[in-house]
Amino acid sequence: MSDVLVVGTGLIGASIGLALRGERDVCLTDADPAHLHTAIELGAGRAWDGTEQAALVVVAVPPAVTADRLVAMIRQRAGRTYTHVASVQSPIERAVQQRSPTAAFAGSHPMAGREKAGPGAAGAELFWGRRWAICPTPESSPAAVLAVEELVAACGAVPVRVRAAEHDASVALLSHLPHAVSMLLAGMLTAGQDLQLAGPGLADMTRIAAGDVELWLQVLSANAELVAPLISALAGDLVHTADLLAELAGRDAPARPDLQWELRHLLERGRQGRTRVPVKRGLVESGFASIAVVLRDEPGQLAAVLLCAGAAGVNVEDLRLEHVPGRPTGVVHLVVRPELDDQLRAALAAAGW
Amino acid sequence: MSDVLVVGTGLIGASIGLALRGERDVCLTDADPAHLHTAIELGAGRAWDGTEQAALVVVAVPPAVTADRLVAMIRQRAGRTYTHVASVQSPIERAVQQRSPTAAFAGSHPMAGREKAGPGAAGAELFWGRRWAICPTPESSPAAVLAVEELVAACGAVPVRVRAAEHDASVALLSHLPHAVSMLLAGMLTAGQDLQLAGPGLADMTRIAAGDVELWLQVLSANAELVAPLISALAGDLVHTADLLAELAGRDAPARPDLQWELRHLLERGRQGRTRVPVKRGLVESGFASIAVVLRDEPGQLAAVLLCAGAAGVNVEDLRLEHVPGRPTGVVHLVVRPELDDQLRAALAAAGW
Repeated sequence: MSDVLVVGTGLIGASIGLALRGERDVCLTDADPAHLHTAIELGAGRAWDGTEQAALVVVAVPPAVTADRLVAMIRQRAGRTYTHVASVQSPIERAVQQRSPTAAFAGSHPMAGREKAGPGAAGAELFWGRRWAICPTPESSPAAVLAVEELVAACGAVPVRVRAAEHDASVALLSHLPHAVSMLLAGMLTAGQDLQLAGPGLADMTRIAAGDVELWLQVLSANAELVAPLISALAGDLVHTADLLAELAGRDAPARPDLQWELRHLLERGRQGRTRVPVKRGLVESGFASIAVVLRDEPGQLAAVLLCAGAAGVNVEDLRLEHVPGRPTGVVHLVVRPELDDQLRAALAAAGW
Repeated sequence: MSDVLVVGTGLIGASIGLALRGERDVCLTDADPAHLHTAIELGAGRAWDGTEQAALVVVAVPPAVTADRLVAMIRQRAGRTYTHVASVQSPIERAVQQRSPTAAFAGSHPMAGREKAGPGAAGAELFWGRRWAICPTPESSPAAVLAVEELVAACGAVPVRVRAAEHDASVALLSHLPHAVSMLLAGMLTAGQDLQLAGPGLADMTRIAAGDVELWLQVLSANAELVAPLISALAGDLVHTADLLAELAGRDAPARPDLQWELRHLLERGRQGRTRVPVKRGLVESGFASIAVVLRDEPGQLAAVLLCAGAAGVNVEDLRLEHVPGRPTGVVHLVVRPELDDQLRAALAAAGW
């Protein structure tokens, strides 16, 4: 018996195998032999023989076929416990309850992904520090929930226990709505437009529009009931804003303080909403100091700056490299604890940076 | 006579002063004495005496008062040439043409900003590698355009010459629309919601919602005529998507291939639109290799990895640090030219990473 059987070796399935490498005995299976081959080559696990039982079966296939594969695995008694990793929980939970009810099942969903799909994009670190929802059904046994929790911990993720219905409502707002918005916004960028004035704002706003179209079609369809009203609500706010702006257009702004007041209210509500978003890499926003150092584009420049910091006893908490297109230089932003700011600046200055 | 007079020492004005430090003689003025004091303390320039002429006057005050300050400066003959840095060009160009026509004026707009406002957030590197639109009027003298181009180059930015009307249409789509969308999306995140399943997608989609509300109120109002129809068009796409999803909800997806087809078309259009966005840090997307290395959270770890790369003769083109919350480790993603991928992996493995 293996520890884990991963059914589906796409980005998520192969990444789970890689994350468990050396810690768990992982079997892999995939309807696509090329995917399976790549995942095995990468070291995500060994090929499943179609009969060997696993302590935990993880179904990691596209959302639209997750319920079918899960039910098939349960009926086949392929494992002692079962989970899946799809972005929508309730329909899959219902399918299991109706077609193959078992206490050995608990759904789950890692809050991790990438714009690229397939095992070639997989990585052991994909789940590191990310939230991973665990959605026990009312019938889930403690053993099933524990098995999923151990999987999550072994992948370096943070388990968050939540009911399927709450999960689906939560990701409708926090993930599915933003993806739909990003895709529709990016869809306004059509051939023939001059995009040379595009800045990092547009790049951020359209990043998740690069995702897998088939995957998102399935996710949005599966959670349509919860996502549709949110998209409608945002559309209403956009229409309201467009109306306000159309009224303001061509007039002297100070002459219509009522319109300005309404628009300000909408923007201010957004600013406040943003403060509620947990931002992972927000060290600078949480009071850490950031120091910009100019580098030449040669091997060893960045290492020398970091050695200088190390020699001064300063741990660099984060850093960001910025290249200057067309110039043989760049800027590195070093993020350090605020009390070490002066110390590092002095050390860098003394070293001639 | 000074080289440059910067009128308004907020984020942009103070950053211009800092970028020109040591290269140009910069005078500063601001209606807010605290801002002026901070900018001078930071080394952005010296206080303007109210009479000394400048080769170039840069008006860097909020958009709503830019035209007035610019006209006042022109009438006062404060400079030989004049520009401004507001996000909307046509209304300011018209104001100058109507109230104080001169060949010594050419508008401009750096595609750079930050969520924080004020001189305290300023930095010499704010404009590095960014596009900076230069918008000559039909009357602008070659000397005025040259003065602005020299300013842009001295700030490390890339000049892009464009007519005011084209600029305003371009930023309406590429900057003002995304900002409005980000703010309205973030505005849906209200008190009492559980945001613990929020991932990096939501963080990216709401980043620019943290901007200065007063500034964006002025920008959107000033460009209202061009932004409003774009917001309406996006709202229409959202309504269409919500309608499709509402029809799909509760049905068997395969039973309605027509709806799925329409939804796929919308998402696919977005994926294609995204490919048109110039992405600054897209080395990995352009075929560069990315290697993940696990670090302990101690001084010197990252420097040691980079030294290892340097010793192997591999220049690290970009890197990204990822901390694992609650764990004393992190992951660094090293981006290198694809032909150096194997070389670096071998060197890192040999060094025990």
